Amino acid sequence: MTFQQKLDRVVEKNNSLLCIGLDPDLEKLPKHIQANKHPLFEFTKDIIDSTHDLVCCYKPNSAFYEARGVQGIGELQMTCEYLREKYPEIPILLDFKRGDIGNTNKGYAAFAFDYLGVDAVTLHPYQGIEALQPFLDYKEKGLFILCKTSNPGSGEFQNLLINNEPLYTIVAKQVAKEWNQNSNCFLVVGATYPEELQKVRAIVGDLTILTPGLGAQGGDTKAVMKAGLNAKKSGLLINSSREILYVGNGQDFAQKAREKAVIIRDEINTYRTI
Amino acid sequence: MTFQQKLDRVVEKNNSLLCIGLDPDLEKLPKHIQANKHPLFEFTKDIIDSTHDLVCCYKPNSAFYEARGVQGIGELQMTCEYLREKYPEIPILLDFKRGDIGNTNKGYAAFAFDYLGVDAVTLHPYQGIEALQPFLDYKEKGLFILCKTSNPGSGEFQNLLINNEPLYTIVAKQVAKEWNQNSNCFLVVGATYPEELQKVRAIVGDLTILTPGLGAQGGDTKAVMKAGLNAKKSGLLINSSREILYVGNGQDFAQKAREKAVIIRDEINTYRTI
Repeated sequence: MTFQQKLDRVVEKNNSLLCIGLDPDLEKLPKHIQANKHPLFEFTKDIIDSTHDLVCCYKPNSAFYEARGVQGIGELQMTCEYLREKYPEIPILLDFKRGDIGNTNKGYAAFAFDYLGVDAVTLHPYQGIEALQPFLDYKEKGLFILCKTSNPGSGEFQNLLINNEPLYTIVAKQVAKEWNQNSNCFLVVGATYPEELQKVRAIVGDLTILTPGLGAQGGDTKAVMKAGLNAKKSGLLINSSREILYVGNGQDFAQKAREKAVIIRDEINTYRTI
Repeated sequence: MTFQQKLDRVVEKNNSLLCIGLDPDLEKLPKHIQANKHPLFEFTKDIIDSTHDLVCCYKPNSAFYEARGVQGIGELQMTCEYLREKYPEIPILLDFKRGDIGNTNKGYAAFAFDYLGVDAVTLHPYQGIEALQPFLDYKEKGLFILCKTSNPGSGEFQNLLINNEPLYTIVAKQVAKEWNQNSNCFLVVGATYPEELQKVRAIVGDLTILTPGLGAQGGDTKAVMKAGLNAKKSGLLINSSREILYVGNGQDFAQKAREKAVIIRDEINTYRTI
């Protein structure tokens, strides 16, 4: 089964376009979790158990695990294994934003797909399609290429004009029209840039787009939905991380996260039916 | 001491611009090393011990370690610790090509600088300077920003023209003139593109440039030296990986690597004196 097929099934089953970003920042975790032997794993496990029927995807962010070295990578592996075994229907998108020459990308692809067993990854476009071939060869996996990123300064290069066309729309065209021979390429467009999201949607047809940046970064659900839905009232992976993970800080943190996830999922769905 | 100061000292001490890339690919290692409990570490340790007086820098490539998960990251940590303790004068450049939004980059910077204790890293420019602030704040460390990469398809986006100027020279200008307030920014230009290297050198003055791609990728030492040396007959980190690491495959692999490294270092130096 391809990543897109797996995603479509759980979008329908859970009636959700919500992707929860797993960004376990040790200092922000509840005190009783910090004291645990595997705090990053225990935290995300509880979040997953309390939200699995509300999401269409989980997106662990490699940086938060790498910050703790061997122990962190071990907890990332535990998290992916837990998801694969307990909730095999939910796709895992590893947010690790890699990109190197082909020979080196083999190693990064092995880490994501063979070692961790995730369903999809995020990648940098800067080195071109030829460099990403080792990833493209995993035909069942999803490759989310950075197009217009959510950060305030993303325009420095991404908005540069080439024949009156910004770089990010050229990336969108190349990815959707040239790179996507195996139907395994997708895009990342920040929820903080609805106008740019609308332009990208007009270029790429029904292609699935990951939109990080709701909540803590300032992205607005209504604007994202109006700009980004495809013709099937779908095609978005709307990511929320900090806004859900850290709403509570006590013994009931996972329940608080669930309550917030319900609100966001339902808000997203109001714009899918109108 | 800053990265550049550390580099300058060992360039002078070892009379070398050679950087050896540590790309330990398990399948390519000598059979007696493969059988070891920590094969990636044992291999690079022997390479390091046999070449430490010939180089100005070591560049471990994270992908080759990540491919083996927790065990690989452990061996990367062992390699960095070994270098820091036994050869503290030689800078370590972690080639991990990261880049994310600011909040996430804190985690990647912690992995490189706090956990592994390396002196420099490679980074993607696509998200702009604002996103890289957590790295820029490490004033003593070196940040090597991808400019024109060594792979055959690197022109897909890097050569796009903005007002008749290719994207890679715009990246070079931004990095050298805007990002470099802490004098900790440097560039990566593939040894496979000497003409482009010459253009970048003309833009950035004496700034240190990492040039990967000699040997296995086809880069030519003479062309790189003529195009890339700065006014002080220096300013290049000339990387060679596979060409040195895998020249031998028996018990004497480290001695064979040394012999090849001597040849490359000396060849590089012939172009520094003329």
